[in-house]
Amino acid sequence: MKLTLNGELCDIPAVWYEHDEVVMIDQPLLPTEVRLHRASTVDAVCDAIESMVVRGAPTIGATAAYGMALAQRTGAPLDAAADALRTTRPTAHDLFHAIMYMQERLGAGDDAVGAAEAYASSIIEQCRRIGEVGAELIGRGDRILTHCNAGALATLEYGTALAPIRVAFTQEKDPFVFVDETRPRLQGARLTAWELAEASIRHAVIPDNAAGYYLWRGEIDIVITGADRVVRNGDAANKIGTYEKAVVAAENDVPFYIAIPEGTFDPQIASGVDIPIEERDEDEVRRCGGRQITPEQSPVRNPAFDIIPAAYITGYITSIGIIAPEEMATRFGVQETE
Amino acid sequence: MKLTLNGELCDIPAVWYEHDEVVMIDQPLLPTEVRLHRASTVDAVCDAIESMVVRGAPTIGATAAYGMALAQRTGAPLDAAADALRTTRPTAHDLFHAIMYMQERLGAGDDAVGAAEAYASSIIEQCRRIGEVGAELIGRGDRILTHCNAGALATLEYGTALAPIRVAFTQEKDPFVFVDETRPRLQGARLTAWELAEASIRHAVIPDNAAGYYLWRGEIDIVITGADRVVRNGDAANKIGTYEKAVVAAENDVPFYIAIPEGTFDPQIASGVDIPIEERDEDEVRRCGGRQITPEQSPVRNPAFDIIPAAYITGYITSIGIIAPEEMATRFGVQETE
Repeated sequence: MKLTLNGELCDIPAVWYEHDEVVMIDQPLLPTEVRLHRASTVDAVCDAIESMVVRGAPTIGATAAYGMALAQRTGAPLDAAADALRTTRPTAHDLFHAIMYMQERLGAGDDAVGAAEAYASSIIEQCRRIGEVGAELIGRGDRILTHCNAGALATLEYGTALAPIRVAFTQEKDPFVFVDETRPRLQGARLTAWELAEASIRHAVIPDNAAGYYLWRGEIDIVITGADRVVRNGDAANKIGTYEKAVVAAENDVPFYIAIPEGTFDPQIASGVDIPIEERDEDEVRRCGGRQITPEQSPVRNPAFDIIPAAYITGYITSIGIIAPEEMATRFGVQETE
Repeated sequence: MKLTLNGELCDIPAVWYEHDEVVMIDQPLLPTEVRLHRASTVDAVCDAIESMVVRGAPTIGATAAYGMALAQRTGAPLDAAADALRTTRPTAHDLFHAIMYMQERLGAGDDAVGAAEAYASSIIEQCRRIGEVGAELIGRGDRILTHCNAGALATLEYGTALAPIRVAFTQEKDPFVFVDETRPRLQGARLTAWELAEASIRHAVIPDNAAGYYLWRGEIDIVITGADRVVRNGDAANKIGTYEKAVVAAENDVPFYIAIPEGTFDPQIASGVDIPIEERDEDEVRRCGGRQITPEQSPVRNPAFDIIPAAYITGYITSIGIIAPEEMATRFGVQETE
């Protein structure tokens, strides 16, 4: 993605491999500061994923692939590296998909860095296609709601949910994006708004609570989000709050699409209720902008994801076309086992 | 309400009249600091309402009533005072109701402070009854979702939504409250959590985005909120986000109740679409905990309220009993004029 780094205009992905370091755009510092974060050990890569220096399912997958390459290049035990990377975050399927891919490629004797770069390139190419496929759903002047950040930061380049919006913009459809701020970590307010501002795409940040109001007023034409995991029956897991938007969109007859690359699809899980949901630190809710906002003695709950049942999903935007939720398993080449 | 002020345990309402000053608990300072705010002119009372030193429809109404008493006692022109108070905030009906009440009482030659105190006492008595009426809806161990703050701070004493929960607690039903943090101003995280912690009622603060997740998981038995205005067809306006909770509650067959005193009911408006919705300052969204969270160049939208259509409201909890939305107009003594 194009951005200004140390005063220079650059075109870089969210994460890459260079001189045996995994280099990442430091996402928690955005939008006020653009800085790179470098990890030169597998432990440092794990820390970066866990503390969300990088986030977004496809970017997490690519970071894990580079982490496996780093393990091989630095002589770290590969099985231990895979185990450590797998325990960083439980919900995004891309993480497990990328590690499995790297284990297969390394087992076949392929070059580690080359394999990880091929994995990353595949994500980028899929996102480019997702943009072309999804842009056909966006009409001139459409107002689009998105939740969290499913942009270039989450997917290396283009984005999943943001890719169709970027293409619609280049097609001069003049899209307008309602950006849910996405508490508790504010990936919408901080990251999606930043990407849209950098791309000169019209948008407004709204409190998560306001999305329903604009859906009810008929001011939103289509909802597009990403996902962290999609399973055989077409259910999805995505950033906490996505379920509410999907229900309220359905109630107002607004189409609700999820855009994903293939690494997000998990053929091992039959239904959304079986997707593990990460519960993150209470301090993400307790504090906002560095200040405590809850009473000292008040407990907090902080589930990071929720489940969107297939019934609320109009379709999946993928590199091979728009796919109905109930067709995901067959179109993604999975034999039904139940 | 019972609270510790300057190291001493006190029992005070959210606002009262004393030595020709309107005295209020300074709500933006909570939960980290408990301090009183004093207004000795009508302008200062208007500022306090507008800047949300006091908030919550019934408390806004009582503050306006005391503001009218202050005008009369200090010799300020009454019509100008009424006009100034009316323009502070547009959505809460109690504001207009209280000013009209005071104009009638002052027109009849009644004592100004006595009239305002009678208005406040009526709210407190209604909230006490709302607690008794609403507690019957709460079963042993029930898990209740609430949004924003409809507690003692919003209603002088007891609360509207919180009153039934307080009574259920004294009935040893051991209720548990999911508290939506309620961005952008965090009245749930700051105020409702503080009231519940002070009352030793079990609760957890959650991001607004997480309410749908817990409804979907079947972990919420009943939703109770307050309202800022209820109109003839049974529609309500309440804090932004309430509409989403109502839709998702209905989708999961969880009953959704709104608790109000009579001053919140507006017989002049036929339908929710006609309720004026306040759009507040962008900085409430742009900043959180004192720090900027959005890119400098990103626009923001900040509607303070949304409309909950009657179809999503199981019933209104009022001092005269549980009332179905479609019966509000007749039960609150309004002749149909259309």
